Amino acid sequence: MQIAVIGASDCADEEYSTARTIGKLVAASGAILVCGGLGGVMEAACRGAREGNGMTVGILPDAGNGNAYLDVIIRTDLGHARNFLVILSADAVIAIGGKYGTLSEIAIALKTGRPVFSVGGWDIPGVIMCRSAEEAATNALSAVRRSPLCRTPPSGGVSL
Amino acid sequence: MQIAVIGASDCADEEYSTARTIGKLVAASGAILVCGGLGGVMEAACRGAREGNGMTVGILPDAGNGNAYLDVIIRTDLGHARNFLVILSADAVIAIGGKYGTLSEIAIALKTGRPVFSVGGWDIPGVIMCRSAEEAATNALSAVRRSPLCRTPPSGGVSL
Amino acid sequence: MQIAVIGASDCADEEYSTARTIGKLVAASGAILVCGGLGGVMEAACRGAREGNGMTVGILPDAGNGNAYLDVIIRTDLGHARNFLVILSADAVIAIGGKYGTLSEIAIALKTGRPVFSVGGWDIPGVIMCRSAEEAATNALSAVRRSPLCRTPPSGGVSL
Amino acid sequence: MQIAVIGASDCADEEYSTARTIGKLVAASGAILVCGGLGGVMEAACRGAREGNGMTVGILPDAGNGNAYLDVIIRTDLGHARNFLVILSADAVIAIGGKYGTLSEIAIALKTGRPVFSVGGWDIPGVIMCRSAEEAATNALSAVRRSPLCRTPPSGGVSL
Repeated sequence: MQIAVIGASDCADEEYSTARTIGKLVAASGAILVCGGLGGVMEAACRGAREGNGMTVGILPDAGNGNAYLDVIIRTDLGHARNFLVILSADAVIAIGGKYGTLSEIAIALKTGRPVFSVGGWDIPGVIMCRSAEEAATNALSAVRRSPLCRTPPSGGVSL
Repeated sequence: MQIAVIGASDCADEEYSTARTIGKLVAASGAILVCGGLGGVMEAACRGAREGNGMTVGILPDAGNGNAYLDVIIRTDLGHARNFLVILSADAVIAIGGKYGTLSEIAIALKTGRPVFSVGGWDIPGVIMCRSAEEAATNALSAVRRSPLCRTPPSGGVSL
Repeated sequence: MQIAVIGASDCADEEYSTARTIGKLVAASGAILVCGGLGGVMEAACRGAREGNGMTVGILPDAGNGNAYLDVIIRTDLGHARNFLVILSADAVIAIGGKYGTLSEIAIALKTGRPVFSVGGWDIPGVIMCRSAEEAATNALSAVRRSPLCRTPPSGGVSL
Repeated sequence: MQIAVIGASDCADEEYSTARTIGKLVAASGAILVCGGLGGVMEAACRGAREGNGMTVGILPDAGNGNAYLDVIIRTDLGHARNFLVILSADAVIAIGGKYGTLSEIAIALKTGRPVFSVGGWDIPGVIMCRSAEEAATNALSAVRRSPLCRTPPSGGVSL
């Protein structure tokens, strides 16, 4: 299971806190956290995932080292085009706030059939709006367990 | 001047007609038409540009030859990530209808500061909605003539 | 017909002169010149193509405007990964000198079945070494006229 | 530490065995194994890394799931252009045999200053030829420990 958390690299305190909680919940479920590898929402989600003893993957737009909480660093040097890779590498997507960069990722996710859960961000047709970090994480994890994209459902996790 | 026309590869007759008119108007202004190189709106815009004696560029997602109205063929084999290149290569963007793929391109355009004009499509904050092909083409060409992205303003076209 | 000319952005005078001659010959044949859009060999080839009244396409690694001799500007912001697009967009490839960046392009061309002609550069198995600008251009144009990648052979241009 | 193992997806038994041994040695050192995620040399390296209790990352050219030994799946859908990402994501590169695709990766590695160790493959200026899996793995790991690209040298691992 790979879950993407997307949002701005420059975010409000509340968004940072939401992303951190989501990262922790994703990690606790055993899923791998995938993100764009930079600051703000991305850093917060990675930080939370580390606190939850999970694994973090940053798909960077440059050839640098990204934020301080990455276990796996994918250096793309593709600029914004790396947004596509973040989404394609995820079985479900959680958006926290975000501006046009986040919107491009949401659009790609919907285009390629990945479920998108949003906390306080873009309310595009197809996006499932959530009121809290807990609701978004629970919904995303539940969606992935039902998804054919997920190769190895977590033990006992197959819903009927 | 390079103007991108974006929209679905599978479009309604009215959208096809709108795209064809826009292509003709873009070509008549001396601008180069840039698009994703496939069918539907892309083909219509190229067809119109050819009718207007203009030049067409198709930035393809695959390594094929695209539609029948391309003068320059850019084979990327990048899949949807080629959307970024279509937008970055344009000084202004005209969207005709479109679904999530088009939305991803609009988001990238707004993210990178390119003006977006839409006929009958996504009404995202930042997009300038137009009622006709003529209005969209006129606005886009006018925006480009004022834009610092445009290297060589058409003769007499520098506005004060 | 689209012919790629590849080589270093920082080249010797002799390489610049060779690239300029090749650009002129490519243009004279009616083929479109495709390159990486920057300086050195790329600039020289474009300059020659302009002198031969041909069309030039620059596929840039950044989102800039490239050299002064480009008719069509493809801004990719993909960094070195744009090398792939230069090659995929060409029906044949002419390499002039060059270092590791050029080698990566030669490798991609051979991998994807495109003929590669080299003047004074990498002598990799599969590359056809040429002694002059004229020999490289003539061979490349001849190869393209025989190639299934080329959609529209120039009138009377099929060689026996 | 991230080490890339590159080579053909269709390889000889000896190459498979070499790649598997290298994967095991890389994993035993605590480094993460990065590869193109497909079969042949890539699969063998991942299989070995798993046997060495290490972590494996596959950067796929498509949007699939890659070989059976991947811990982290990066779906790019970028085709051959994903070769660049494999190299940029590595602190050192080990090539095992390989054809033109592998050559493109070696060229990118040398272009971007990454050390390349080859077992039985391309002998390009700049590549360090090795006679065995052990020699290649030892050299690569030693190079990474000295490299500024590596953020966190393994404890006690700085060689003189």
